[in-house]
Amino acid sequence: MNLRKYIEIIDDFPKKGISFKNITTLLRDRDAFRETIDSMVEKLKDRDIDYIIGPEARGFVLGSAVAYAMNIGFIPVRKKGKLPGNTVEYEYELEYGIDSLEIQEGAVEKDAKVAIIDDLLATGGTVNATAKLVEMMGGKVDTMLFLIELTDLNGREKNGDYNVESLIKYNI
Amino acid sequence: MNLRKYIEIIDDFPKKGISFKNITTLLRDRDAFRETIDSMVEKLKDRDIDYIIGPEARGFVLGSAVAYAMNIGFIPVRKKGKLPGNTVEYEYELEYGIDSLEIQEGAVEKDAKVAIIDDLLATGGTVNATAKLVEMMGGKVDTMLFLIELTDLNGREKNGDYNVESLIKYNI
Repeated sequence: MNLRKYIEIIDDFPKKGISFKNITTLLRDRDAFRETIDSMVEKLKDRDIDYIIGPEARGFVLGSAVAYAMNIGFIPVRKKGKLPGNTVEYEYELEYGIDSLEIQEGAVEKDAKVAIIDDLLATGGTVNATAKLVEMMGGKVDTMLFLIELTDLNGREKNGDYNVESLIKYNI
Repeated sequence: MNLRKYIEIIDDFPKKGISFKNITTLLRDRDAFRETIDSMVEKLKDRDIDYIIGPEARGFVLGSAVAYAMNIGFIPVRKKGKLPGNTVEYEYELEYGIDSLEIQEGAVEKDAKVAIIDDLLATGGTVNATAKLVEMMGGKVDTMLFLIELTDLNGREKNGDYNVESLIKYNI
């Protein structure tokens, strides 16, 4: 099944010059959605993963279904201020300014092995920050897994310490 | 399995007087997470549902896994400005001010039958707005399904036209 044809390209969103990859057209198609999740499971199934970590918000959609399919737990990573109770925070630089992600304190036990799942690998800043949060708690990031990789943005190189996997690659 | 004991109660979040129900402690537990999704599937399995609709962001986590388990498509509903391309928008009143939700234009075909899934039924404003979006496209809302229902806030009464289901009820 060619998943690529279920992804709609929208020019100049969210700003001029960006060619946005719309995955909602894939998610709504039962066969493409199932194939996406099953292909992700296939990449992870022999790696002894304890948890799937999904960054807000599209990482929730793919990560949760993969966790269910693998019969393991799901842990959300969110923008600052969205998670209740005690959290661990990591600040990271964007092209313009600073952003901050949080995870629930104690969500990942020491030495737990996790995979981070998101829809898109672009410059790799968000997934790198997510990995740092996991490591701050003593967890081990085994794999970073994406539906789409924008190869020209070098997110893979930025995360050279990890096993980076993707289902579909685009130049831009 | 008593799912209630996996939900952590956090007082005074996100503001004083609110007793927040933290579901991340449930999601990270593989057995509780699986039981939650399977219980949701059980409520929907004989209703001929075509799509699961999940409102941002916690609705993504539960809705996507249920859609996968049922082998049907998943359609996200998001805050204004997050979805690319052409969207349908619905504005609704909050306690203080106005909020707005969007869905991708054409996401739901005419007469398609959907279930809306979210983590929490409180006053029921978000799920009601989500139902309106589905109906604006000609779709039919069959069921609104929640992990948690706060019964004292009367969200069920506000959505009296629909089949409302929940797995766990709290008074407040």
